[in-house]
Amino acid sequence: MLCYGTSGMSVMEMSHRSKDFMSILDSAENNLRELMQVPDNYKILFLQGGASSQFGMVPLNLMNKNNKADYVNTGTWATKAIKEAKRYGKVNVVASSEDTTFNYIPKLDAATFDKEADYFHITTNNTIYGTRFHELPDTGEVPLIGDMSSDILSKKYDVSKFGLIYAGAQKNLGAAGVTVVIIREDLAGNQMDITPTMFNYKLFIDNGSMYNTPPTFGIYMCGLVFQWLKDMGGVEVIEKINIEKANTLYNYLDESTFFSSTVQGNDRSVMNIPFVTGNEELDSKFIKEATAAGFVQLKGHRSVGGMRASIYNAIQLEGVQKLVDFMKNFETNNS
Amino acid sequence: MLCYGTSGMSVMEMSHRSKDFMSILDSAENNLRELMQVPDNYKILFLQGGASSQFGMVPLNLMNKNNKADYVNTGTWATKAIKEAKRYGKVNVVASSEDTTFNYIPKLDAATFDKEADYFHITTNNTIYGTRFHELPDTGEVPLIGDMSSDILSKKYDVSKFGLIYAGAQKNLGAAGVTVVIIREDLAGNQMDITPTMFNYKLFIDNGSMYNTPPTFGIYMCGLVFQWLKDMGGVEVIEKINIEKANTLYNYLDESTFFSSTVQGNDRSVMNIPFVTGNEELDSKFIKEATAAGFVQLKGHRSVGGMRASIYNAIQLEGVQKLVDFMKNFETNNS
Repeated sequence: MLCYGTSGMSVMEMSHRSKDFMSILDSAENNLRELMQVPDNYKILFLQGGASSQFGMVPLNLMNKNNKADYVNTGTWATKAIKEAKRYGKVNVVASSEDTTFNYIPKLDAATFDKEADYFHITTNNTIYGTRFHELPDTGEVPLIGDMSSDILSKKYDVSKFGLIYAGAQKNLGAAGVTVVIIREDLAGNQMDITPTMFNYKLFIDNGSMYNTPPTFGIYMCGLVFQWLKDMGGVEVIEKINIEKANTLYNYLDESTFFSSTVQGNDRSVMNIPFVTGNEELDSKFIKEATAAGFVQLKGHRSVGGMRASIYNAIQLEGVQKLVDFMKNFETNNS
Repeated sequence: MLCYGTSGMSVMEMSHRSKDFMSILDSAENNLRELMQVPDNYKILFLQGGASSQFGMVPLNLMNKNNKADYVNTGTWATKAIKEAKRYGKVNVVASSEDTTFNYIPKLDAATFDKEADYFHITTNNTIYGTRFHELPDTGEVPLIGDMSSDILSKKYDVSKFGLIYAGAQKNLGAAGVTVVIIREDLAGNQMDITPTMFNYKLFIDNGSMYNTPPTFGIYMCGLVFQWLKDMGGVEVIEKINIEKANTLYNYLDESTFFSSTVQGNDRSVMNIPFVTGNEELDSKFIKEATAAGFVQLKGHRSVGGMRASIYNAIQLEGVQKLVDFMKNFETNNS
């Protein structure tokens, strides 16, 4: 925080062109490449602006051949991505689960996919509704784009199945203010003429994420998280822990006659688990008592109601076990 | 760093919609408003993407009436701002100091200003060349836009003379990854149709900088800097210190027959002071010995050569005095 290595200064103070910072950036990139086994023909970029900037950056850079793309609508973030893409081209929503507040992942029929689409966009995990793509759609030659903001590094993903992956850092990568983009190199360089310079993937590829001053301290924090994950044994190890964490909560929810899960089957997210008592007063009482007991930020999104446990990589199994114990007590006291 | 107040968590961990973070954002904004005496009809935004994003965001939002703007070219950053603006409208470069590597601020003749321009853009301080606008141009009804990245909060500026001010955080505001925009409210809302949602000032005004997850920790750091400056006595106090710091170095440079300043008169920056020995070998020797003595990052930009002392708000008078002492010794030993 105050002094990086023997540099005599904080990462926040050093020039982004200094050897020290270049080595921080390089090792962050190399560790992420190793963790996700990113193939050589993919570039890793550290950008700013969050996934919301990618909602525009993706169509501005990739929708410039046939000016159309396929999207699956699985929630708020997908809806926003679709809305932004429509401003720059034709969007074909191949499937949506909007009919029941996005509490499932719609079945996909490859026959409805547009073979001429410039890309095919999914949100791999849906934070508000607690759903995730159990299986990736086979989009053939059409590049698959994944908004992986809320489950990147939580499980093994085959990067080669994607044309581009993007993720805001604040769930599993580090602190808010960094966006990671992993892009198959051949997809860059075809941006629309109207694309702002700072929205051009090619520019950041050509400058190794350093066209202008990057969010240096945020990248440093991501690097520390990558190192922590590597030291732990990598994505395979955290995936097992994440599954155990999620099962601990889902198993209880499925047994309980008091609490219930709002999502069923393979669509269930391993990162975000919404649950309800079926009684709004009891939900409120639970959130109040849980907060007092140190279980914070459990309130569900207003569109789903109830509660939501977001158990990202940083949450340990012990924390989930303690939550389940607390829920069991609450059930006993309120049944 | 690890626990904010009694929240039990770091600012990096908390929800950006939590009461704790909202209060961090509000107090950062209020303190900056107080420090710069920002009038009520101006909004303060905390964005991402650096000044380089503003090079596009300014024309995309403000060049939509007569689709033309006036720019003064005082260096690399102004040149980049001009290049980006030209992609979206007509740019009239009213004056330039490119002829002598930007080592002065060109005299401005109001008769050459376009009264129909949508705005008039300047870079208030030029980091590479060590120049600054001693006097703001009087642009009448045409909104003056200031890239104030490298001298914001270093001296008293009358915000009401500007239509919009922007500044990357990493010089005087905090750490890289936050961009502050101060915008006269009536100028927002006229963006071009092609403007990406995340490049729309109005959207961030309507959402109080919180359309999506902002760079929470970076904003927290800016807030700490604002508080530090307030505790010190505000901009008037730091301005006096900055002038004393700059005079300490300029006075020596003007006396010395060994070192010389590359900029003359009122155009001299108070933040960035380039100087040369007139001999490249001696310049290199100086940089090497200075670095060994703990005076780091003194190498000048390759376009100017020699040395450059960047003495932003965080540098104390004592540091500048020590540098001058070191330079005097070097002069004695090498004359």
